[in-house]
Order: sequence, then C-alpha cells, then structure tokens
Amino acid sequence: MSNILRRGRLEAAPDEEILRYASSMETDRWIFSADIAVDLAHTVMLKEQGIISAEDCSKILAGLLKIREEGMEKLDFSYEDIHISLESRLIDMVGEDVGGRMHSGRSRNDEVATCIRLTLREELLGLLEEIFALRKTLVSLAEKHTETLMPGFTHLQHAQPTTLAHHLCAHEAALGRDFDRVQDAFSRVNLCPLGAAAFASTGFNLNRKRTQELLGFEGLLENSMDAVSSRDFLIECASVFSNLMINLSRMAEELVIWSSSEFNFIELDDTYASTSSIMPQKKNPDTAELMRGKTGVAVGALMSLLTICKGLPLSYNRDLQEATPNIWRSVETVRASVRVMEGMVRTMKIHPEVLSAQSVTGFTTATELADTFVREAGIPFRTAHQIVGMLAREGEKPTIEKIDSVAEIVLGESLSSRGLTEKMIKEALNPVSNIKRRKIEGGPAPEEMQHYIGRQQTELELNEQEIATIKDSIDSAFEALLEVVDEYRKV
Amino acid sequence: MSNILRRGRLEAAPDEEILRYASSMETDRWIFSADIAVDLAHTVMLKEQGIISAEDCSKILAGLLKIREEGMEKLDFSYEDIHISLESRLIDMVGEDVGGRMHSGRSRNDEVATCIRLTLREELLGLLEEIFALRKTLVSLAEKHTETLMPGFTHLQHAQPTTLAHHLCAHEAALGRDFDRVQDAFSRVNLCPLGAAAFASTGFNLNRKRTQELLGFEGLLENSMDAVSSRDFLIECASVFSNLMINLSRMAEELVIWSSSEFNFIELDDTYASTSSIMPQKKNPDTAELMRGKTGVAVGALMSLLTICKGLPLSYNRDLQEATPNIWRSVETVRASVRVMEGMVRTMKIHPEVLSAQSVTGFTTATELADTFVREAGIPFRTAHQIVGMLAREGEKPTIEKIDSVAEIVLGESLSSRGLTEKMIKEALNPVSNIKRRKIEGGPAPEEMQHYIGRQQTELELNEQEIATIKDSIDSAFEALLEVVDEYRKV
Amino acid sequence: MSNILRRGRLEAAPDEEILRYASSMETDRWIFSADIAVDLAHTVMLKEQGIISAEDCSKILAGLLKIREEGMEKLDFSYEDIHISLESRLIDMVGEDVGGRMHSGRSRNDEVATCIRLTLREELLGLLEEIFALRKTLVSLAEKHTETLMPGFTHLQHAQPTTLAHHLCAHEAALGRDFDRVQDAFSRVNLCPLGAAAFASTGFNLNRKRTQELLGFEGLLENSMDAVSSRDFLIECASVFSNLMINLSRMAEELVIWSSSEFNFIELDDTYASTSSIMPQKKNPDTAELMRGKTGVAVGALMSLLTICKGLPLSYNRDLQEATPNIWRSVETVRASVRVMEGMVRTMKIHPEVLSAQSVTGFTTATELADTFVREAGIPFRTAHQIVGMLAREGEKPTIEKIDSVAEIVLGESLSSRGLTEKMIKEALNPVSNIKRRKIEGGPAPEEMQHYIGRQQTELELNEQEIATIKDSIDSAFEALLEVVDEYRKV
Amino acid sequence: MSNILRRGRLEAAPDEEILRYASSMETDRWIFSADIAVDLAHTVMLKEQGIISAEDCSKILAGLLKIREEGMEKLDFSYEDIHISLESRLIDMVGEDVGGRMHSGRSRNDEVATCIRLTLREELLGLLEEIFALRKTLVSLAEKHTETLMPGFTHLQHAQPTTLAHHLCAHEAALGRDFDRVQDAFSRVNLCPLGAAAFASTGFNLNRKRTQELLGFEGLLENSMDAVSSRDFLIECASVFSNLMINLSRMAEELVIWSSSEFNFIELDDTYASTSSIMPQKKNPDTAELMRGKTGVAVGALMSLLTICKGLPLSYNRDLQEATPNIWRSVETVRASVRVMEGMVRTMKIHPEVLSAQSVTGFTTATELADTFVREAGIPFRTAHQIVGMLAREGEKPTIEKIDSVAEIVLGESLSSRGLTEKMIKEALNPVSNIKRRKIEGGPAPEEMQHYIGRQQTELELNEQEIATIKDSIDSAFEALLEVVDEYRKV
Repeated sequence: MSNILRRGRLEAAPDEEILRYASSMETDRWIFSADIAVDLAHTVMLKEQGIISAEDCSKILAGLLKIREEGMEKLDFSYEDIHISLESRLIDMVGEDVGGRMHSGRSRNDEVATCIRLTLREELLGLLEEIFALRKTLVSLAEKHTETLMPGFTHLQHAQPTTLAHHLCAHEAALGRDFDRVQDAFSRVNLCPLGAAAFASTGFNLNRKRTQELLGFEGLLENSMDAVSSRDFLIECASVFSNLMINLSRMAEELVIWSSSEFNFIELDDTYASTSSIMPQKKNPDTAELMRGKTGVAVGALMSLLTICKGLPLSYNRDLQEATPNIWRSVETVRASVRVMEGMVRTMKIHPEVLSAQSVTGFTTATELADTFVREAGIPFRTAHQIVGMLAREGEKPTIEKIDSVAEIVLGESLSSRGLTEKMIKEALNPVSNIKRRKIEGGPAPEEMQHYIGRQQTELELNEQEIATIKDSIDSAFEALLEVVDEYRKV
Repeated sequence: MSNILRRGRLEAAPDEEILRYASSMETDRWIFSADIAVDLAHTVMLKEQGIISAEDCSKILAGLLKIREEGMEKLDFSYEDIHISLESRLIDMVGEDVGGRMHSGRSRNDEVATCIRLTLREELLGLLEEIFALRKTLVSLAEKHTETLMPGFTHLQHAQPTTLAHHLCAHEAALGRDFDRVQDAFSRVNLCPLGAAAFASTGFNLNRKRTQELLGFEGLLENSMDAVSSRDFLIECASVFSNLMINLSRMAEELVIWSSSEFNFIELDDTYASTSSIMPQKKNPDTAELMRGKTGVAVGALMSLLTICKGLPLSYNRDLQEATPNIWRSVETVRASVRVMEGMVRTMKIHPEVLSAQSVTGFTTATELADTFVREAGIPFRTAHQIVGMLAREGEKPTIEKIDSVAEIVLGESLSSRGLTEKMIKEALNPVSNIKRRKIEGGPAPEEMQHYIGRQQTELELNEQEIATIKDSIDSAFEALLEVVDEYRKV
Repeated sequence: MSNILRRGRLEAAPDEEILRYASSMETDRWIFSADIAVDLAHTVMLKEQGIISAEDCSKILAGLLKIREEGMEKLDFSYEDIHISLESRLIDMVGEDVGGRMHSGRSRNDEVATCIRLTLREELLGLLEEIFALRKTLVSLAEKHTETLMPGFTHLQHAQPTTLAHHLCAHEAALGRDFDRVQDAFSRVNLCPLGAAAFASTGFNLNRKRTQELLGFEGLLENSMDAVSSRDFLIECASVFSNLMINLSRMAEELVIWSSSEFNFIELDDTYASTSSIMPQKKNPDTAELMRGKTGVAVGALMSLLTICKGLPLSYNRDLQEATPNIWRSVETVRASVRVMEGMVRTMKIHPEVLSAQSVTGFTTATELADTFVREAGIPFRTAHQIVGMLAREGEKPTIEKIDSVAEIVLGESLSSRGLTEKMIKEALNPVSNIKRRKIEGGPAPEEMQHYIGRQQTELELNEQEIATIKDSIDSAFEALLEVVDEYRKV
Repeated sequence: MSNILRRGRLEAAPDEEILRYASSMETDRWIFSADIAVDLAHTVMLKEQGIISAEDCSKILAGLLKIREEGMEKLDFSYEDIHISLESRLIDMVGEDVGGRMHSGRSRNDEVATCIRLTLREELLGLLEEIFALRKTLVSLAEKHTETLMPGFTHLQHAQPTTLAHHLCAHEAALGRDFDRVQDAFSRVNLCPLGAAAFASTGFNLNRKRTQELLGFEGLLENSMDAVSSRDFLIECASVFSNLMINLSRMAEELVIWSSSEFNFIELDDTYASTSSIMPQKKNPDTAELMRGKTGVAVGALMSLLTICKGLPLSYNRDLQEATPNIWRSVETVRASVRVMEGMVRTMKIHPEVLSAQSVTGFTTATELADTFVREAGIPFRTAHQIVGMLAREGEKPTIEKIDSVAEIVLGESLSSRGLTEKMIKEALNPVSNIKRRKIEGGPAPEEMQHYIGRQQTELELNEQEIATIKDSIDSAFEALLEVVDEYRKV
C-alpha cells in the first residue's frame, strides 16, 4: 500500500539515502513490545469511551496480538518509524475502515514518548536489580575480609593500613548512591504522556487516567505540550548512568593496577582475562580495561543528548529522534558492565599475604605514631607531625632513642620525658592494633566494620523489597491489561 | 613562619610557577566561611571529647572568630590551600602549642569535602528559591493568558492553535522537575564526611554525630574511605545544573526567535536588550542569547568533572582539587541565569494580537477538521487524515463542497451524505472553539488550564514550605553552634 | 578447532555474556577489507624477506583471496575479533603448518592500528569529495544570487541588507576550512604502524618500508611503541568531524527557521520534508532538524574518545578497542550529512520576493545612513550613530527635516547645513545602492561577489586536483599489491 | 559620560545584575593589548584612505598610546566590554569630535574577532616553543637511556623488555604530532577579519590588505559574514589542546604509577611533590595528579565551545561572547602543563636498577622464545605461541628438556631434534640480546634508537627554525606598525 502518511500532503517519494538518514526503524526494535502495549491500552480506552465500536476494538486488538506474535521482523522496514509501520501492518490485516481508527486522538509524538518511557522503565528496573546484586557481592566479600590487612592509598601512595573490607565497602557505598539515583530517575520516568497527542491534546473525549493505569504508570505527565517536548528524563538517566560508570571505572582501574606484577594484589578469573596474539605468557585484565573504556559510551551518550536538546524551541522537533538511540546504547552498556563487574569481583582471587605485607611498607603507621605522641606525650598534633616527618625523611626505624633525639631538636625536650614508652611506640607501629583503634563510625576497625556491614545488609533488604513492590505493581497492571484485552477481543 | 606541612618531609621549596599551578587559594574563596564553621565545630567536639583542654579550645575558638572577622583577604595566599593557610594564621595568633592541636583527628581530605558540601548546600538552597520564583512568575503570567490564542509549533511549523498559558506552563512543568532534581541532589549533598580523616578515620575518640549535628547535616557519609574519595555528588549536581540550563536554553531560544521582526511575538524590556556599536536602529535580545550560550558553562563543567573522576583509584587523589572549581562556575552561572530569566519573562511585552492572528495561519485547525470528520461522519481517522491532507496541498479554504469532492475521490461518497454540515466545519476551523474542546487533563482549554494552574499553585505552596523547613533546620543548627562557641570561648 | 589464542595460557572458556561484552566482531565489519589487504601485504613481505617460503606464501595468499571472496559473513563470530577469526579461518583452510606462519613478526596491536588507518583513510577521502561537492553547489547557487537581496541578520534581528550570494558564500568559506582540516588530519592518518608488533617491534628481519609501500601509505609511524598506543589521530578526526557538524548544524538551523511560515524564505523539496501522523496540513523540514540533531553523534563520539584515552599508560590497553566504534559512527553520520545537505540546498525553492521585501524592514539601512552623515556632513561616526539611534527609537521614516531636528538637539546644528541632501538620504536608504557600495574584499557588492566567486572556483579546481592525486597514488599502490599477490600466488 | 552606545536606542539602564551577567570586561583583560594594536592599525589605515584627517589621526593615536600606558585597570569596568570602554576613554581624552571617528567603517563584531585572533596567535606561538622544549628534554633524556632496560607494558602487564629511551621517545613522537596540529591551527588563526564590520563590510573605502599587513596577519578572512560569525578556529584550537592534554595525562598517569612504592621506577623532585597534612611520611606526586586532573579543563572548554556554537544561525550572535573565555582558560592551563611537565621530567630521579630488574619478570622474553622456535626449528609461529603458552602456564623456567617435552605433546616431536639448542634458548631469554635484535625502524635496539634520536634532533632543529621564522615575521610587522604610528602621531 502507499504510505499512509505521505499520500496526502507530499508529492515526491523520499529517496533511499534520505530514508536511511531519517528512519528510526533499526533503533525502534527497542520499543516494539512497548508500542504494542501502548496500542492495546489506547484501543481499549477508545472503546470504553465510545470513540470506537466494540467490533472495531475487537478486530484491532486481535490484529495487534497477531503482530506481537509475528515479531518486529515481519514489519516493513521501509517506513520511517515503527509506529507508522505497525499501523500500516494493522491496516493491511483488518482494513483501513477498522485499523484506520486506532490512531484517533493520538499522535506519534505522545506515542513515542510513551514507548520510550515504558521501555526505559523496564531497563531501569533491571539495572536496580543488577546494582543490588553487585552491592550484595561486595558486602558478602567484605564480610570475609574484615581482618584482611591492606595498605590504604592516597595519591596511589601507601598512606595508612586498612582492611580489604573497608576498601570494598567504600565502593559499595558509592554504588548505594547510584542505586538511589536510579530510583529517583525512575520516579520521573514512570509517568504517562499518552493523550497529549501532537502537543495540544485532542478534542476526542479520551480518558488519560485509564491508559495510565492500564500501562502501570504511577501518574500522568500532565501538560500536553511538556509531555511530548521534554527529554530531560533522558538527560537525567544518561547522567545517572555516567555517574555509575565513573564509579565502575574507578573499580576497574584498581583491578587493572592490582593485577600488575608490581602490585600482585589479585588475579582475575580466566573468564575475565585474555592472552596476547604474540606474547603467549600474558594474562591481561582485559575485561576490567574494557569496562574502564566503556565509560566513554555513557559519557558520550550524555554529551550527545545535551547537544541535541540544547536550544530546541517547543514543542516536538525531529531532532529528538536522534536523542533516543543514545539512551539505549548507554543503558545496555551500563547494565552489562554492572553484571560483569559483579562476576569479576565475585570470582577474583585475592592475595591476602601480599596485601598484608604491603600494609606496613612506606611507614603507613606514621599518622598513628604522631597521634600517639599527641595522646601520650600531650604535644600538639602539628608538632607531632613535624617530628614524624623528620623521622620519615631519614628512613630509619623509629626507635624511642631516635624519637627522643628528634624531639629534642624540635621541642627542646624528649618525649620519653613526657611519658612516651617503648611499648606505646610498638603498638602504634603495629598495623593490627593500629586498625583496631579506628573504631568510630565508618572506620576500618573489624568491630565497627561488622556493625557497618550489618547496617548495609539491612538497607539492602529494604532495597530488595522496594524493587519487588515496583515490579509487582507493573506486573499487575500488565496482567490486568491483557485480561481486558482478552475480554474485548472476544466480543 | 616556615611551611607547617613541608618543613618535615620535603626539602626543596616549590617554585612560583608550580605554586600557581598547584594552589587552590583563589577558588577557596568560595569555602572560606564553611572552613571557619568546620573548624569551630571540630574544635568544640575535640573539647567535649576531652581531646583538647577547655583553655586550648577557648583560645582556638577566639582565634577562629578573629580570622572570620578579618576575612579571606588577610590570609597568606602563598599557601597551597585555604586549610593550611588558615591553620598557619591561627598558629601565628595563638602559638603552635595551642593552634597546633586543632587538626587532631582530622585531615584536609575530610575537611575539604565537608567545606564543599556545606557551601554547595547553601547554593542549592538558593537555587531552589530561585527556581521557585521563576515558576511562580510563569504560573502568574499563564493565569493572565488562558485565553490568549497563539500558534502551537511542532518542527517550528504552525501545527495547532493553543494558548500562551498552555505554552508557558509547559516550561513551568519542566522547571518543576528541575526543582525536584535539585532537592534529590540536596539530600545526597547534605551529609557529613567529617571524622573520616585521611580516609581511615582516626584513633582519636571523635564524636562524628556531634559535628554532623553542629553543622546541620542530615546524616553522616559513613564509610570513611568513601567519605573522602567520592565526588559523585558533584557530578550529580553538575548534571542537574546542565539539565536545567538546557531547559533555560530552550526558553531563551524561543525568546530570541519570538523577538525577530518576522515573528514579533514579544519585545524584551530594554534592560535585557542591547544595541549595536554600528547599527543604531537595533534592539537585540542579547540577554537571551547570552543565556543560551551560558548553557555551555554548565555542560563544560559537567564534562570536566566526568573527565577528572574517570578511572581514579581510591582514595583521595590530588586530581580532585581540579573538580571543585567546576561546580562553583556552574552553580554561579545557573543561579544567575534562573534569576535573569525570571526578570526577563516578567517584564517582556507580549503582542497578543500577533499571537492571535498567527494562531490560524498555516491551517492549524486541520487536525480538528479531521477529528470532526471522524466524530461526525464516522470515517476512520487515517482516512480523514488523507482527505484533509489533500485539501491542505491545494491550499484552498476547506468548504463543504471542496471537502465533499475530495471525499468522493477517496471514499467514493461525500461526507455531507454522512452527516457533516457547514456549521460543524466552521466550528472546527474556529480556533477558539477548537481549543475549548481540548479539555482533557493537561490540554489547553481555558477551563482545564485554570484547574491546572490551581493544581500547580498548590504544589508551589508545598515547595515553598519544603524550602522553609530545610532553611529553618540549617539556621537552627548554626545558631546552636554559635551559642556553644560563645559559651566555650568564655571559659 | 579450539581457540588458537587461549589454548595455551588460559583455562576457563569465557562465557556468552563476557564474549558479547568483549567482542569487537560486529564493529570489525568496517575493517574486513583492510584486514585482508594488511594480511596480503604482510605475507608478501615475509616471503620477500625469506621469513616464509614461497610455497607457504602462495598458499596463504590463495587462502586470503578466498576469504575475501567469501566475505565477512563466513567468518566465525564467536571469536573476540576479526584478526583472530580470520587467522583461524585461514588455518582451517591451509593447515596450521602453513597458516600458522602468517602472524610471524606481527601482533594484533599493529595489525588493528593499520586496519583502522587504512579504512579511515578511505572514509576521509570520500568525505573530501563530499565536502567538495557541497561547496561547489553553494558556489553555483551563489553565482545565481549575487543580486538577490535579503536581510542580513545579527542576533536574529534584521541588521543590514545583503545578498543571498554573500550569505551562501559565508557557509562555503567555513566548509572550505573544514576541507583543509580533513586534509591535515588525512596526512596524519596516512602513516603505517605495521611492523611495530606488540609495541617493541620484532626480532624478525621485517621490511617496514615495503609493507608501507604495498599499502600505499605516505610514511611510517616510526616509534613502535607510539605506533600501537596512540589514538590521537582518532581524536583529531572526531574533532574535525564535530567542527564540520557544528557548521552544518548552523546551516540546518537556518533552513528550519527559514521554512517557518513567519520567515517563509524557502521551501524544502518534498524529498527532505515529512508530514505529521495527525496534522495532515503540515510540511515539516525534518531532514534539516535531523541533521541538527545528528550533530550530537559527532560531539558524543568525540567526548567518548577523549574519555577513553584520558590517563591510559603506554602501550596498548584494551580500552582502545572501545575507541574505534566511535570513529565509524561519527564518520558515517558526517558523510551522510554532507551529502544530504548538498541535495537539500540544491533542490530547495527560494522565495526571492520575500527575501527582498524583508531586506529593508527593521531599518536595516541605518548604518549606511549614519555612514552617509559621516561622509557627507563630516560628523564623527559616534555622533552619527546617536542621531540615527534617536530616529530609530521614534520609528518614523527619516526625512531630512526629521534628521535636521534631531541633529539640532545633538549637535546644535542641522546636517543639511553641513551639506546633507535629500538625495543622499534616499540613496542611503535604498538597499540596492547600499549594497553596491560594499565592494571591499569580501563585501556583498555584486561586482565584488563575482570576483570572489571566481576566486573560490579556482580554489575548488585546485582542491579537485589534490583529491585526484591522492586517489591515484592509493589506487596505484593497491594495483601493485594485487599484481605482486597474483605473481606470488602462482608460484 | 552617558553610555555612548545605549544613549540612542534604549531607554532603561541595565541593572547591576544584568551588567554582571552580560559584561565581558573581566575576560577582556586577555585582549587589552590586542585591542590597542587593532585600534592603532585601523586608525592608521583610516588616515591613509582619507577617511579621517591627519590631525584627528594624530590625536587618536596619541590617546591610544596613553591608554596603553595606563593599562587595563584604568578603564571603566561598568561597560559591557573593553571595546566600548576603551572608545569611551578615548572620547573622554580627545573629545567626541575626534575620538568618535575611530570606529568608522568598523563594528565590534570584526574588532573582537581580530583581537581574539591576535591574542590567540601569541599564545599558540608560546605553546609551540613550550612543546618544543618538552620534546627536546625527552629526546635528551632518551639519548642517555638507550641501554637502560625496562619492562615494556601492554595492559599494564609486563610484556617484553624494552629501553627507557624507546618509551620516552614514544611520548615525544605523540608530542611531535601535537606540535604539527598547533602549527596547522595557527595557519587558520593567523587571518584578519578586520574590515568585515558588522558582517556586511562597509561603504567606507577601507583598505583591508593594509590593516592585515600592519597587524602581521598572513591573509584575510575574506567573506565578511564568515569573518564575524565563525568560531571554528576556537573549536579547532580547543580540540588541539584537548588532544595534547590527553597525551600529557598519559605521561602523568605513568609518573603517578611509577612513583608508587610497588613500582618505584622513579622519584619526582621535591618541587613537584607534596606531603600530607596528617601523614607526615608521605611524598605524593601531586603535580602529576593535578596535571592529569587539568585535562578536564581542556575537555570541558572544548565541550563548552561545541555546545555554544551548535545551531547558531548567521551572522554574529551574542552567544559567541561566551565562547571566548573557554579558549583562554584552556590555553593557559595547557601551556602551564607543558612547561611543568618539562620540569618534572627533567628533574625526576630514575631508578635504573629497578627498571632493569623488572624488565625480565613476568616472562617478558616469551615472544622472543617463540620467535626463536620459528626461526631455528622452522615451526609455524602459531604453534610456537602455543608451546610457549603452555610453558608459561606452568610458571617454570623454560629449559630445553621442558620445551622438548611440551613440543612432543603439541607437535609429536622435540624441538631439539629440529635444531634448537640450549644456547639459542639462553640468548632468547636474555633481555639485552633480545632487545639488540629489535633493530628494524622504530624498534628499541640501542643502535636503531641512536639513529632514531638523530632523526628526531634534525626534525627539532627544523621546528626551531619554523618558530623563529613566524616570530620574525610578526615582530617585523609590529615594529613597522609602531614606526608608522610614531610618524603619524607627530603630524
């Protein structure tokens, strides 16, 4: 059949190249299921509002179910988008006198916005589950390593001893905020633009609340011009994804560095490594490197979206078609990355003996030594800092004699004269007792870490319930939709 | 005095160029007040925990209040950052034996993170108030224009008639989401990292809850390694600012286009316009153009932050110093832009007669005509679309005769034979009755717009209360802090 | 057969998900032809250097030609990249004892870098031809419109009259610089990394100059570590593409604005327009909007590349695999956009009568009037600017009386008393004589524009020759390669 | 005096906030000298063309020289930009009847474009010198280390032995391309837009060639609309800067990793390091970290520029004012970074014994061993790769017995039976003889590296001459300008 859109207003047929340039059919694979759902819900509502007859409704629903069964591949890809291709297919099946009524009171502008939101909602839910799983793995691993000493770094220099649990939980905490940001974005995605039509709503007596409910949305995107023009929800999601990928890139960077022969803190499972086409001895942390690189996908997608939306007047402009593929590329990459990171962390081999040995190289206990001077000899921290700095510069083991002789220079008196003992020094220099002291909230002391892990586990359980609640609500809506479709189809 | 940090460990003095390259003193003007507040709260807590004596506490507090009074300019700008410059100034005032105790159990790593969060919290609050004011202005203006006809655009082409109220409320709705995003970001900014020290917390018996409370934070940023290493809150804020600027850029674009002599929909107040150095007749919408351009500040700042944070291992790295200036540049630009937009919109002169005249050019009522065919003659929408499309191509006024003759070609029968009358056509083509029909939720019908505006006003009142509650809570905390400082200082 | 790479060093087989995450096979379609060419050239050289025997060489070449004929689809897509898949296919065909020798003295690191450069070289050449065609179309169109008046804009306000030729040539000039930038990038792309092996070159006695020559490269990328690690050539190309797309976005923006019913300067050919699914009267400049939106592809790709490469230590890291797809997405979009813009500009319908009528609205001749005061009445420009500004504010036609009365206020004397006449004023206000005066280099005067167009045409001819020279040189190299392959295959 | 621009057309005075929002005065400090130069050249030309009198010319030139002497600080910062502030100051000095003539035939549009290009030209020249110095330092250092063994990395894993010279020269090669890109950009910056006026040139009989020559530009930016509207030269420069900063970030990353206690390859000079406010033992590679972070400045500036320019119609729009500050921020950061990197590399302490010891850990000679099997036992590379891979997995020292036993499994025969000897194995495993073999162009063999370094030194000399030539030509132009100014001022 001739193009149902162009046959009226436009004469020339667009040529091959223009079609390729302008078509969104390939990307629209992402929204095929959503588009069917939107069509079903809209048709049900049209019938309930008396805008189409029960017979026409029945035929349209049957046609749509058939198209769903056939799948995307049966659609004609020479159309500019899925909406018009799908409507054409329907009209082929049930005739224009019936199928031509489905688009009443609707435009592709509100249709596509609804499809994107439906699909993105699913992706965000999946992502929430995946972040949850990664956090759980990190917390479980931490639980086993509350006493595994390791050097804590600042500036990639050994700074103070800490535990692997403490380090792993730092990443988990960041991912917890990513989880919250995805949830916040979800609440702004899960709104229904349907009924906005081209942007000015419609003179047909639609029931927007009804389609919202049938599609399981939590509310309406009310103003009809805003409903079709706004893509800030895509920018928000792309930002959240970028933030998350940056966090993953930091973990990935550590996995790469820790896998070097110089660090040798861990060994990735073979599944996540590769060898060289020329250097047969090599085992490269490729998957971690790839993940670090894939940060570029999320950041690039965000930049594309910002560039596209900047300076667009209201309401719908065709530029927005270019916005959508970015969110799919980004979410696919981000979800896979979270899953892969979970497996990579879960299966990596940790070298506790290396971690432990390194935890004291580089005089990592210097701060505790200075703090001990403050607590035990009553000198100001800044003075203690200077004494320890001078000891560090000489690179010798800080004995009580050495300390006293430096203190004489700086303070004019020895610290042993102010109560410092050999035993106190020894304890300060011992990483185990050092860490045990660091038991304020969020510190690495094993005792505190166990409490902390307990609190995180409680929060994770809460998150799990939140995900389940959202899923239930959406599942129920879809079941209800399919039931009513089934009922109306039979008429 | 010699540099209190470097005197211990490092020999060579950094040269001029390196100092300029590495110093953050200029940017640290932003956090001067915050740094004093953090020092006050930390000192109060050190005293309460028995880590410093009441006398030392009193002297330190007095010194800090003095420094606050003197202002940032009195600090020595040859230091690498404000924290060390301020501590040096304090030591100059009260001696190292007293002042050298303030930094106990703390590091610049947690100190700077706390200062950034305190300052950014203030900025976000200010921004919330400013977005609120802009939304209020838009809603007030919309209230006056629920019956002001204008052409609604898609693709910058006249599409359907709408009202100025409907258009203005579309922007307001987008800004409402920006408001919500700022609030969400606020909740992740308003957390206290103090006590994390370098990253491993400390062996001193600090009371983290107490400093959190004194500084009015809503909670702790618990894991001490996460507390000093994470800058995802900056990325989140920069993303929220970019999203908001994109929304403003869309309004600005319209103000520019609407000010053109071809559109002539509005005239900006002289305050927001400029003339040419060479073309004396010109009145240019410069402020709107600048705002559109300043979108680049927010987007650039976001991209800088993402670039900086990508691939950084834990915990603190000096790269993070480069992160902060971006957030200040961005928030300053964004806040000014929101304020300026409020004034620009409030004072602009609207040309209702031009808007109204243009509301029907370009056959904007074509959709309603097609919808009328559907409703009154019972034909499918797709067929109606085709008939109207053919009428549009001919560019003539759609009389009943013309319509019937096209319908004969397409359908094989006239629409008048299916019940269509002259009167129905006339009504469809009348923009006023056209818009009145569009009364479903979010549509432009004056009746619905009045309801909508009422709902928005209720939401705005709620937002106003939320802002007030947050401000009260922070103000109370600071008052309490100053009271306890006053008390301890007197001892 | 089992994986020729992993069978040695690694135990676990990578699972499905990891394979999908890590594989570049889909993207490698872009470099299939290039990879065959690289294999052919390398094999020829290995034989000439005596590293493989003539018999082995003959069999490998025959196998490679067969694989080329079969096409990419016959390769096994379960491999992580095309290089190893292709080598496996070869070994399947000719046995490991022969096929296993092809990779001697080579690594995938130099192989892939060579493939990317070969392919990108072709794309850049195609792009040069396409920019050339667009510039030619603009110059041809300008040639017809040296006397077509139109309003020149600053700030989207009418500023001074100009001609359509002048405006079109402004875009052409920008595209000329894009052309030059592509050429400059080409010279840095067209270098051969082959022979660098993993990064340390090789102990085999390769002849790097020979493979460079066989593949038609202009020189070597000498330092072998640099040869495999650097992707600055991708960043450079992506930057050049972004700059070009920004220029196209500016043209596209004008096409959109000019197509609005308010401006009505042009009408795009139906091929480049679309209608609405709901508003049958509409003709939307969709292709121009899409092009404006596709700017986001180029900018996003650039940002991805920068993010990926930032902070990578030498030499090859797997992150670089993520770099390449960005350049293909970008170059494909950019090339199509240039082609589509050429067609869009060539076929658009211009409305000279509207352009001409608008060329004088908004007092566009004000500057010339002020200049006339300066030249004829001898007053300073700044004073003339003030007088005309005051006339403009009143919005009346500037008669000699009006001018004199304003001049009296400002100067204390009339301009007619200083020699200004009615005739001079009339001429200043006439856009045709106004433009004729603007005949300095680069000005819109028809006389000057004709000279200018002549100069541009000469430059275009030069560019055409440059393209031809490059193409010839590459074509000759490939012909020579195929000849020697044919010869060695026969042995 | 009242504002010389606004007094004509606009009534309301802009308020404080708007002024701050819209003013470019702070940024215009960058172009103060350039603006004076442009004014001088324009005034000289106006006099030579008879547009202003010799007396007026003399007074204007004297005024401009006075303003130059007084410096930027004496200007009134309440103006919106330097051009109007400077012109106002001139009029204050010499009266409107004289000073009001300077702006004849000119607009701020062409004026500012010329100022930006003049200033940027200087910055690019400085950058060329700085890149040159860094390359020279790298080459000099390499010259000393052609025999300093180190492990070469891929995937941050030890891959094959190489030399420090080879590694340093890889960075130098990348910087050589940055140098070339700056030169290419320079040639597009060094063009004169003056005379384009607002965009339509002017009816005054200006001599554009003369001002071009007086300002030392190499050519005209001819089309007058293009001359004021285009900022692709800023995007190009910002791209070149980003590419360069990415290269520096890769060096900086290595300096950070190499400074870790695990790697311990180098120690930065104290000038470039800092210590901790709490951990007195630390010596952090802060300057390298900051440089890595400052990459964000260049990338952010580029993204700002792209965002600003996207979709702007011709000709000048005020958005462009926001473009300029980005280029200054970027160039300042980039130039300082190049200088600081030069010092950091020049002064760092290298640990050759660590580098040498690490050059063989991780079985880095495996490739050479496989290559030896190929060359000496005549087996295919792929088979050799498998045998060595199996040896690597076992982690034992590869003796002839071990090799033979693996070969029996893989090949069914021993390699010693195919001619492999103990001595051959020993040589393959020796990093020194290993590297000596890698003597093809660009390889690390000391002999080849010496040739390579010689070639680079020749290129550097050439580059030095190119810089000198450009500087001479600009210096001569400015001297000539000052001479003619001196002459005309005396009249």
